[in-house]
Amino acid sequence: MQRAAALVRRGCRPPTPGPLGRSRSSAAAEAPAVRKVRPERGRRERILTLESMNPQVKAVEYAVRGPIVLKAGEIELELQRGIKKPFTEVIRANIGDAQAMGQQPITFLRQVMALCTYPNLLDSPSFPEDAKKRARRILQACGGNSLGSYSASQGVNCIREDVAAYITRRDGGVPADPDNIYLTTGASDGISTILKILVSGGGKSRTGVLISVPQYPLYSAVISELDAIQVNYYLDEENCWALNVNELRRAVREAKDHCDPKVLCIINPGNPTGQVQSRKCIEDVIHFAWEEKLFLLADEVYQDNVYSPDCRFHSFKKVLYEMGPEYSSNVELASFHSTSKGYMGECGYRGGYMEVINLHPEIKGQLVKLLSVRLCPPVSGQAAMDIVVNPPVPGEESFEQFSREKESVLGDLARKAKLTEDLFNQVPGIHCNPLQGSMYAFPRVFIPPKAVEAAQAHRMAPDMFYCMSLLEETGICVVPGSGFGQREGTYHFRMTILPPVEKLKTVLRKVKDFHVKFLEKYA
Amino acid sequence: MQRAAALVRRGCRPPTPGPLGRSRSSAAAEAPAVRKVRPERGRRERILTLESMNPQVKAVEYAVRGPIVLKAGEIELELQRGIKKPFTEVIRANIGDAQAMGQQPITFLRQVMALCTYPNLLDSPSFPEDAKKRARRILQACGGNSLGSYSASQGVNCIREDVAAYITRRDGGVPADPDNIYLTTGASDGISTILKILVSGGGKSRTGVLISVPQYPLYSAVISELDAIQVNYYLDEENCWALNVNELRRAVREAKDHCDPKVLCIINPGNPTGQVQSRKCIEDVIHFAWEEKLFLLADEVYQDNVYSPDCRFHSFKKVLYEMGPEYSSNVELASFHSTSKGYMGECGYRGGYMEVINLHPEIKGQLVKLLSVRLCPPVSGQAAMDIVVNPPVPGEESFEQFSREKESVLGDLARKAKLTEDLFNQVPGIHCNPLQGSMYAFPRVFIPPKAVEAAQAHRMAPDMFYCMSLLEETGICVVPGSGFGQREGTYHFRMTILPPVEKLKTVLRKVKDFHVKFLEKYA
Repeated sequence: MQRAAALVRRGCRPPTPGPLGRSRSSAAAEAPAVRKVRPERGRRERILTLESMNPQVKAVEYAVRGPIVLKAGEIELELQRGIKKPFTEVIRANIGDAQAMGQQPITFLRQVMALCTYPNLLDSPSFPEDAKKRARRILQACGGNSLGSYSASQGVNCIREDVAAYITRRDGGVPADPDNIYLTTGASDGISTILKILVSGGGKSRTGVLISVPQYPLYSAVISELDAIQVNYYLDEENCWALNVNELRRAVREAKDHCDPKVLCIINPGNPTGQVQSRKCIEDVIHFAWEEKLFLLADEVYQDNVYSPDCRFHSFKKVLYEMGPEYSSNVELASFHSTSKGYMGECGYRGGYMEVINLHPEIKGQLVKLLSVRLCPPVSGQAAMDIVVNPPVPGEESFEQFSREKESVLGDLARKAKLTEDLFNQVPGIHCNPLQGSMYAFPRVFIPPKAVEAAQAHRMAPDMFYCMSLLEETGICVVPGSGFGQREGTYHFRMTILPPVEKLKTVLRKVKDFHVKFLEKYA
Repeated sequence: MQRAAALVRRGCRPPTPGPLGRSRSSAAAEAPAVRKVRPERGRRERILTLESMNPQVKAVEYAVRGPIVLKAGEIELELQRGIKKPFTEVIRANIGDAQAMGQQPITFLRQVMALCTYPNLLDSPSFPEDAKKRARRILQACGGNSLGSYSASQGVNCIREDVAAYITRRDGGVPADPDNIYLTTGASDGISTILKILVSGGGKSRTGVLISVPQYPLYSAVISELDAIQVNYYLDEENCWALNVNELRRAVREAKDHCDPKVLCIINPGNPTGQVQSRKCIEDVIHFAWEEKLFLLADEVYQDNVYSPDCRFHSFKKVLYEMGPEYSSNVELASFHSTSKGYMGECGYRGGYMEVINLHPEIKGQLVKLLSVRLCPPVSGQAAMDIVVNPPVPGEESFEQFSREKESVLGDLARKAKLTEDLFNQVPGIHCNPLQGSMYAFPRVFIPPKAVEAAQAHRMAPDMFYCMSLLEETGICVVPGSGFGQREGTYHFRMTILPPVEKLKTVLRKVKDFHVKFLEKYA
């Protein structure tokens, strides 16, 4: 009940009884929480309450780990306690967590990490020489030759050099400067750090941050924490979630009435929407940013996750340079990458980097200072990032196995992307754009008016009602579209394509059966 | 020059020419930075400048990695380039980074970590069974049995259980609930997360945060980031840096004129001051917090670092419970621990935990939500934390070696603490309180009036001038007391006792010689 009460007060309704749950709350969905806490017997009032806490933190929402995931945890506990359900396991398709879904780590990456962790293994004949070479190089760049020392706040020097070399290769020779590379605690850390520096002003000069709708809710959460203004631009669902510059223009024009739009965030390949933006689109966006004086944030953590044969990943950095010096020496751009996605899926290590170009030199000092307060990103995560950007090359002992493992993961994901799109589009009332990249499907679902009414009666958003029902009837945990944003009156959910092929087929079949029954029930 | 300009504008003066450096800046020390950036040739104005950036971030200062450390880096590069100096290496005694100073990792800890990283090693006969047992337990609690999966936002369940069991043992049976344990990215992350939730209000109702002076500058930096009010209480240098409740009372009384004092931070054992607070003192502080309705933050990351035979570490949690239910069920307390200090010194893994008790249940939901936005702390750091709280026990294969390594580190630190105190106190014009705990000396140094004048001429704080001179003449890098706060007119520096014994003796001798020469020069 305490948890339920907490959910209610932060604007998420707990599940209600009957078909959907075991508890009912009569609190209004968005009711302001202004009641005074009464001291309980033998208890004094708490200092920290919903009334006294930081209101910006209270306003934060993060759907990917929100109420539906708490519910999934409760159901798992019930299953463990032997409570009978129409299913035997919860399938967590809510989060891009590949290894939790059974994907095996890349052997070479873990070998290097183990060697760095316990350097006695450098004498072991069971590790390949190229892994030892990588490990020695990383350790030599660490204080005391140990992953246990703090690194420089910006990250280990030689790893930043490897990142810069990787970017240069990736972008066909466009130069990258290690001094512009900052290693981070996952991409989230980099994104929130850059936004933290960018946000300023009060009243009508508060910083406006343009984010796509649908978006990855880290952005809205950080904007809320920082008390900045979220400026939505809508992706074009009818056009495979393309980004249209006219829509950006509309968003900026309207925003200027009440804030100072200063930052433009793009997620490419898209999360949750899975599109891969065309080169032309990126060029248009860069020109728009130049014109409107916007600081660009390019979230490119899915740069290795492109499946559609008609699509290629184009980095903002590369396109910027190809547009000529007027752009490449002027547009401020931060781009982000991570160890968590791609083919490696090393989420737990919290590795990532950002490249920030055209930053004012005075701001660089400010950025390093801000990073130094948290000392440094995890050095093990930095080492993991190094292996991602500096993998085995032809002629090295581990090259063949590494390539086989990498291709296997990416090939499977491509097959699953196609399978998911095809199967969803066979279900009446579900429409799914092609999964060109990333690791999610974001299908649009038709929710009949009677189901919308039922959701309202349960004080839930219709898509939350849909996803809660899906979870309770099938054990499949997906995230309602309202957690990412969607055009009013449309409903979606985000589902990862990470379960192994056979399990994914089962998941898709179960979603289909559920959906058909749902339509019948609320016809 | 760009870096120098950046330093000037954030209130830190770069080194000046002549005896102390190669560059001179004529900018006023705290000159407001309001000039307009002029577009350079072919360049447009930057969007993100010192004028437009987040002013709260601009106000942040973090001395432990501040200008003196940047200078140390420059000198290292000069040495590498063959430039002659009166010394051959820079000794970084500015930061508590044990392994960078040559301390070896605890073997058992790294064995478990290597097994978790590369589980193929679980079949290797060269790893002890107790390490394998720990690794299997951790992996079984991870998604997909891998360190590469995200954990729950609050941390891996079984590690939180181990932390709770550790606290219960440490506190002689006082119960600890795994549900109150939150694993963090080092202690800094926990401290800033709790402060972030606590801060609210505007004008005279802005949250006041009481911190000791001297303090660890993470606190002042986070308070600045969050736009809260820093309320200083002074530790009693004449009385071995004791914390006097009358001084707390004064600080709160005066603060109430301009803010709402709501949080009290204590660092015990002290950083930078190295004292270990008495049980009586802690009891007084808790009673004061109860009386004044303050949320307590107990930074106890040096709980294993107590050297003085007359001192013992008393946790706030334990004392709170021993004071009876009126306190133990009412006072809100967050206490912090870390893998970075103690005998293990695993800074790079960014492991830590906090225990938060008497938190309002609604706030618990808010805290988990806030943590979930950053997904989870590094799982490798969580695993490192597990080994710290769940070490080998008598009868286990690794117990003897583990104990030997642990005692060796702590024994060395105790000897170095005594050595440092004794040697500093032999130098005229230096007074050093006993180093009862932590890993720092914070001696008070006499700076003659002529040196104060010289510092003013160089636009430096006198102790910054002293420390810069020390660095440039001896290669020893320490942090000026002004970075931690000190009573006006007194000067200190913080130096770690982490260099190996023989090197530490050299360091102390060099500081002594420098100081004597400094006094002569400015007599």
